[in-house]
Parts: sequence; structure tokens; C-alpha cells
Amino acid sequence: MRRALISVYYKEGVEEIAKALESAGYEIVSTGKTATYLQELGISVKKIEDITGFPEILGGRVKTLHPLIHGGILLREWVEEDLKQSKELGIVPIDVVVVNLYPFEEKLKEGLEERELLEFIDIGGPTLLRASAKNFYRVVVVVDPQDYGWVSQKIREGGLTLEERRRLAAKAFAYTSYYDALVWNYLWKEEGFPNFFSLPFKNLRSLRYGENPHQKGFLLENPLESLGIVKAKILQGKEMSFNNYLDADAAVRSVSELQGPACVIVKHNNPCGAAVGSDLLDAFLKAKETDPESAFGGIVAFNDIVDARLAQELTEMFLEVVIAPEYEPQALEILSRKKNLRVIQYFGHSIWYDIKKVSGGYLMQEEDTELYRELKVVTKREPTEEELKDLIFAYKVCKHVKSNAVVIAKGERTLAIGSGNTSRVDSLRCAISRAHRYGFNLEGAVLASEAFFPFRDSVDIAASVGIRAIIQPGGSIRDKEVIEAADEHHIAMIFTGTRHFKH
Amino acid sequence: MRRALISVYYKEGVEEIAKALESAGYEIVSTGKTATYLQELGISVKKIEDITGFPEILGGRVKTLHPLIHGGILLREWVEEDLKQSKELGIVPIDVVVVNLYPFEEKLKEGLEERELLEFIDIGGPTLLRASAKNFYRVVVVVDPQDYGWVSQKIREGGLTLEERRRLAAKAFAYTSYYDALVWNYLWKEEGFPNFFSLPFKNLRSLRYGENPHQKGFLLENPLESLGIVKAKILQGKEMSFNNYLDADAAVRSVSELQGPACVIVKHNNPCGAAVGSDLLDAFLKAKETDPESAFGGIVAFNDIVDARLAQELTEMFLEVVIAPEYEPQALEILSRKKNLRVIQYFGHSIWYDIKKVSGGYLMQEEDTELYRELKVVTKREPTEEELKDLIFAYKVCKHVKSNAVVIAKGERTLAIGSGNTSRVDSLRCAISRAHRYGFNLEGAVLASEAFFPFRDSVDIAASVGIRAIIQPGGSIRDKEVIEAADEHHIAMIFTGTRHFKH
Repeated sequence: MRRALISVYYKEGVEEIAKALESAGYEIVSTGKTATYLQELGISVKKIEDITGFPEILGGRVKTLHPLIHGGILLREWVEEDLKQSKELGIVPIDVVVVNLYPFEEKLKEGLEERELLEFIDIGGPTLLRASAKNFYRVVVVVDPQDYGWVSQKIREGGLTLEERRRLAAKAFAYTSYYDALVWNYLWKEEGFPNFFSLPFKNLRSLRYGENPHQKGFLLENPLESLGIVKAKILQGKEMSFNNYLDADAAVRSVSELQGPACVIVKHNNPCGAAVGSDLLDAFLKAKETDPESAFGGIVAFNDIVDARLAQELTEMFLEVVIAPEYEPQALEILSRKKNLRVIQYFGHSIWYDIKKVSGGYLMQEEDTELYRELKVVTKREPTEEELKDLIFAYKVCKHVKSNAVVIAKGERTLAIGSGNTSRVDSLRCAISRAHRYGFNLEGAVLASEAFFPFRDSVDIAASVGIRAIIQPGGSIRDKEVIEAADEHHIAMIFTGTRHFKH
Repeated sequence: MRRALISVYYKEGVEEIAKALESAGYEIVSTGKTATYLQELGISVKKIEDITGFPEILGGRVKTLHPLIHGGILLREWVEEDLKQSKELGIVPIDVVVVNLYPFEEKLKEGLEERELLEFIDIGGPTLLRASAKNFYRVVVVVDPQDYGWVSQKIREGGLTLEERRRLAAKAFAYTSYYDALVWNYLWKEEGFPNFFSLPFKNLRSLRYGENPHQKGFLLENPLESLGIVKAKILQGKEMSFNNYLDADAAVRSVSELQGPACVIVKHNNPCGAAVGSDLLDAFLKAKETDPESAFGGIVAFNDIVDARLAQELTEMFLEVVIAPEYEPQALEILSRKKNLRVIQYFGHSIWYDIKKVSGGYLMQEEDTELYRELKVVTKREPTEEELKDLIFAYKVCKHVKSNAVVIAKGERTLAIGSGNTSRVDSLRCAISRAHRYGFNLEGAVLASEAFFPFRDSVDIAASVGIRAIIQPGGSIRDKEVIEAADEHHIAMIFTGTRHFKH
């Protein structure tokens, strides 16, 4: 006699594999409700307690944790002593184990009261999965209902190969590790992390490729976050690529900082234009004008409803992705004429951690959620009301530009953005030369820098093109020299106390 | 009567908690070797089989998986029916569970034969941990020997609080998730990932802060990689910061690509100078000259032994980090005069995956390990031998520069690097203006671009400053126009077929 054990919370479809097992001559062993479900479908089932002689106890908390069950799973038929012991104790080998678990994740999201929720931490199920998976040289373990079909087929045809059983075993351990990762994250109430831990991932899909065509890429969901670009709704267009997701995330994070009808255009993960306008169309046109060369093929994010007029304008140029919280039906109709254009609906994002991969491990950090600690005027001249508005706008955009980052702005629109240079003054030089190339007069503009100026040179350069106010964190040993330079040029300067390095 | 259960693979120190339990009046229950260990220390212990009436079977594969044990753990004393059942069945409550697991990770690294290794997947231990942790409203679970001290103290003083038990429960689930993450990664032989999985992390330490002072930062090891910057040896200096690790990783990855005595200087995660020289000192001086402004406070990586002469030169300027595979003793002595300078010994890195955080999830990709698929001359003129050498050097450096990336080089040294701009032609413009500012004559230099040129403008600009050869992946719809431009200017151009976007 050979046995199979079936114990599933989600019962749908399990009859397929049960029938295959029955027709292959297996005795099916089951726990309470699974047994009833299968019996009602006319499949004969033996109950666990008929084997163990031990009742289900503690409201179902202990059902399958018994040596006659786990002996049947863990038995190595290639070990003489195991065979002898199992004969003596009446242990029957269990060859196939089909288990899925109490839905801890779902119940967590439903917000159950804690004691109720704890009941949904499965103990017996993971043990069955882990024991079976450990013994995959003999045992078939199925945790994923998507595997019922092909496994049933294989059982009918005489069995699975070692490699197939290994794959199922890996999936079982992957699932138990995912499950326990959710549980510890729920229980942990402190800052930081335990000495040893894991993080849960849902494999949403393979992407066409990674950052480059020769790298495979994958889109993964973090079940510990409820919102984000990964969960945005794709309304139309070509499949989102690895780089599209990366840029869309950057675009949405930055446009979400802005107040009023706003637009941010991102290219290569950096904003190349941003503006607050009288409406979204105005904001888009201003953002685009900052650097039309870069905006070509860009990712465009808005913080409000896209209407038909804006949609029309968006179809006039080549864009990769449009993202907004909402679209008027007519706007969607207009956008749909551009078949390839990706149109995304975005519902916000949750605060979690940022992870950066370095060789041998990871750097993990809290997200950069603070804009400024203070707004301290350090120069003789105070910024005017208008300058202050522009300074804060520029600082918000600058926070999302890769270091060394500078943003030149006026009238809540960017006139130039300097990104990713290895020296701050060079980011400024590049930004200025770009602004001039596009015909912007920088007289009366403001400048934001995401970190302090190490020398006064940037201030002198800024003054020379007409910049009238500067915002930066401060904190250099040469702050005095930098402030003096500003005072000399009648520039108003604000220290925020909050740096925004971004790499 | 109250019970405690102790079952540990690593026995060191467990007597502390056993003695505390004994003096608090607990009956201690133990598995085979743990029982012997404690008894030899004069602690009285009851064996599991004396409680279950069931022997340890299958070579120790089944010991504790029994309802009389798990009933004792999972019993809810605040539930009438649980109390009634446990009385009927003779279940004694277990209040404290101390367990550590078979050392799967260690045995994996020892490279055991598979069937032997599978024996080190613990089944009983994780079940004890998980059951106890589920019932933390009553049960104390200890998986981490570092907790023996304070937990023993608390037991002697009368017990732990609910919040303390919750924290221990979280650690237990964190550990089982870590453990199973290692197991599935070992078993999984395919590309890609299961539908649900987790990844294992070792929490090495909290960093002073993250990318910015207002963000908390953490250094995490990936146990699935054997080498990398996270495992590099810190020989001297201030504590490595979040940004130091990030930059050091970029520096080492790029210098590792170069052949001959080489140096790469990184600032804000981008190379700002790179060179192959007659020796490391020569390479360093050349790399530094590319952009001394950026090199100030930089991270410097070498691919060979640092000697005394080089060490002397390194102390002449402000650097954040020096990294090399080896140092002569005298070099270390010289470097030690700069107390704050971080000096790191690096042993290479393993190939794993890259992860990028986006809101709601992650983008995961294979590392960019390919340099070029081919070296196809697409212009009338072929590059000279010298140009070819420089082209390959420039392309190697360019691969590690953030997009849009261009590298201008001559004599295997960078003359200018353009990084992180939102348009390619602007990266080139910035690079050229920087090269000219530092007095470099670009006549006869070469240019690398990590992605194709969308228009001919970059080629025209390159020609205008004397650049004689270009390397790039190709693949634009305007390749023909770009090649024509190169031919017009007698520029030799190579297509590699391999793009290197990096964000």
C-alpha cells in the first residue's frame, strides 16, 4: 500500500490530483474539511486520525504533527534501518503530499484582531511541506495549485522524475520562506532588522530584459507594501520594460512632491523638466521646454486628471510612458490612437525601505521622506515671496535628481537641471550652458543644490548669470565663505539642514 | 507542573538558560544529544521519548513531531476546550522552547554530497520554533544564543513580558524564513524565480546613516554570494559609510575590468578618472589628472599590490577610501599616518543578481557581465592598433558610468568622462568642455558611448575636437546617418552589439 496526503485550505481544483492519485492506486489521507470536500466528490479518503489514533486537538492547531504521518513522509526506502523501523511501527510510506496553507497574508490585509490573526499562522502545513520537500528523492510535494495539472498527468503516466520532484521541493521551501517572511515582518515592531531574516517576493513576471538586452529582468512585488508603481494599472500600450518601471517610479515620486497642477518628465531616471502650471497642459509644455532634446522619448508623470486637450498635446510627440492618477474617458480615447504609448494609472505609493545592491550584499535604508528641517535665511538679503516659492519648488525637484544635482528654476518651472556629474560646480556649468542653449534668460532665477557647496565658485558662477536666490542644505566647513560670496552678489540664500544625496 | 523544551545543535552556552529554568522550577525536556550534554553538567532532563512513548526514528529524522509535544506548545490556556482536551490527553504545557537548527548553511558551504546535505535540512526544529512563536502570548521561544543571557535573567526574575515574547517570536520566524530561503535557493536549478519566494539577509550592522543623515542605513550580507565589497577586509580608518560602500563597489567593479596596472577613482558612484599605467602610481596620477576637482575626496581602487611609493602619493591628497587586493607592509605603515583614511582589502566579487527598489516592489536583473558581443568596424577607416586598445579601454570604463555615459580616452587614460545627463549629446558636450578646461588636447583621442547615438550630432561634435575613433553598441534607426557622419570625418567606428545602460 502507498499513500498520498492531501490537506488544503484552498480546495479548488484539488480533485484533479486526488482523482489521478486514486486511479494510480494510492490511498488518500486527508484532514477534516479536505476529507469532506473530496468525499462529497465521490473520492474515498482516510482521515488522519484513523491513522494516528490521535484526535485533531486544540481547535485544529494540532492535526498532522504525528510520527506515523511524518515517518511516512520522511522514510528513506534506500536505508535498511528505516525500512525495519517503519515495519515495526506500522508506518506506511506517503509518496505524494498536496498542501496549501492558512491564508495568513489575506487575513493580515483584512486587518483581523491579533489573536484571530495568529490562528492563521499555519504550523502543520509548513511542516508537511518541508518534510516532503526534504525527502524529494522519493516524495512529490505540491504547494502551488498551478502545478495540479501537469503533476496529475505525470501521476497517471507513472510518476515524476527526480528533477521534477526537486523543482517542486524548491517551490515548497520558497513558499514556506515567503510565508514566514510575512509573519516575522508582522510581529517585528522595532527599527532595524533581526540578525538573520528574509524578505518576501512575489514574482509577477519576467520582463523582456533587464537594463540591457543581454540581462534577464524580472518584476517582483513586495507584499509588505500596499501601493506603488508595481501595482499601478496599465491602461494601454506596449509592455512596460525594466527601464520604464525604473523611470516611471522616479517620475511619480517627484511629481507627487509638487503642489498644484504639475508635470515631471524623466529620462534615464533623472527629471529633465518639471513645472507647476495653471493647468496640467501648461505644466507639461513648460516642463518639456526645459530640455526638448531630453524630453524626446521621455516618461511623463502628472499629479492630476489628464483631460482631452492635454491628451491631444501628449500625442504630438514621441513619449514612452504617460502616468497619472486619472484620465478623462475622452483623453483615453485620444491616447489610444498612439498604440505603442504606455498609459499608466497610478494610485500612490507606500513608505518602505530602499535597497541598493552591492557585491556580496545590500545596502538598505529608510526612504528619503523629509524635504527640509528648516528654512533658514543665512544671507543679508531675504528671498522675496516669489523667490521663496521658486526655491521650494526647485528643492523638491532637486531631491529627485541624481547627485551632484542642481536645479535652476523660475516661475515654478525648471529652466535647467544638472544631474549625475562628479563635481557640483560642473553640474551647475552644464545646467547653465544648457539653459542658455535653449534661450532661457536666467536673470532673477533661483538655484537649488541637493548638497552643500564645497567652495564659493558655484555661487560666483550663479551670480554671473543672474541667479538671485539659492537653496541648499548647508553644512560645509566653508559655509562662511559661501555665504560671503552670496552676500557680495546680493543673493538670498537658504539653508535647509536636510541633504538629498541620490545615487 | 510546567515544562521547558531544549533541543539545540550548537550546545555552547545553553546550560545558562537550562540552569535558570531548573531553578525556576521547570521540568526540562530534551532530545538525545542535548539531553546528554545537560545531564553531564548535572542538570536533570527528561527525554522526549519518555513523554511521547514513541522512539526517535529514521536516524533522528523524526523526534519531536508528536501531538503530546506540540499540544504542550500550542495549548491556549485561555481557551476552555483546550484545557479540557489537554487534561484528557495528559498534555503538559511547555512554556519555554530553546532550539537551534541543523547547520544547513555551513554544510552547504562545505560542499557535502547532496544526500548527506539533505540530512542537514532540519524539520523538527523549525516546527518547534514556529509552533512556539505562534503561541507567543504564552510561550517564550529562543533561537538566537545571543539571547540566552537576558532571557535567563528574566526567567529567574519571574518571566518575560508579552512584548519581549513577541520580539523573540519575530526572531524565530525571521530565522526559519532565512533558513528556508537558503534551502530553496540551493534546490532551485532554473533561471528565474518561483511564484512566491524570499531572499536571505544577514544583518551585519547599522551604518551611521543611509545616503543622507536623516535616513537610517543598514549593511546586509547576502549569504548566497561568497565574495564582494561587503566581505572586504577593513584594514584601517573611519567606519565605512553607506555611500562609501556604494562607491567602493562601483570602483572595484570597474577597476576589475581593466588589464595591466590600473586605477579607477569614483565620486558619487561614477568613475571620474581611470587609467592603465606603467605601474599603479602612474595609473593613479593619470586617473587623478582627468578631473582633479572631482577626484578630491574620491574613492580610489587598484587592481594590484599597493607599494610604498604609491602609498606616499595617496597620502598627499584628501581621499575617502583606498581599495586594493594587497598592500606592502611599508605601504600600510605610510597610509596609517592618515588616521581617517579608510583602507580596504578586496578579494573579488561573485556574480549574483542586481536589485533595484521601485515603489511597491523590485526590479531584479542579471548582472551586466558581457562587455561586447563583437567588434564590428562599420566605417571605411579601421581603427589603428593603438586606437583599438584605447577604444576597448574606454568602453570598459564607460560600462561603469551612469547613463548617458561617454568616455574620452587616449593612451589608456581617460581625458574626460560624461555621466548622468539626460541627453547623450549633452554628456559629450560636458565631457569636452571639462577636458578643455583641464588643458587636454583631444586630437587623436577616442570616444566610447554606452548606448547608440540617436543622431549624428555627437559624431560631428566629436570630430570637431579631434576625436579619431568611436566605439558604441549601434542599433539606432539612424545608424546609417551616424556612420556616414563618421566616414565624412575619417573617424573609425566600431559597433559592439552590447549596450550598457546603467542607472
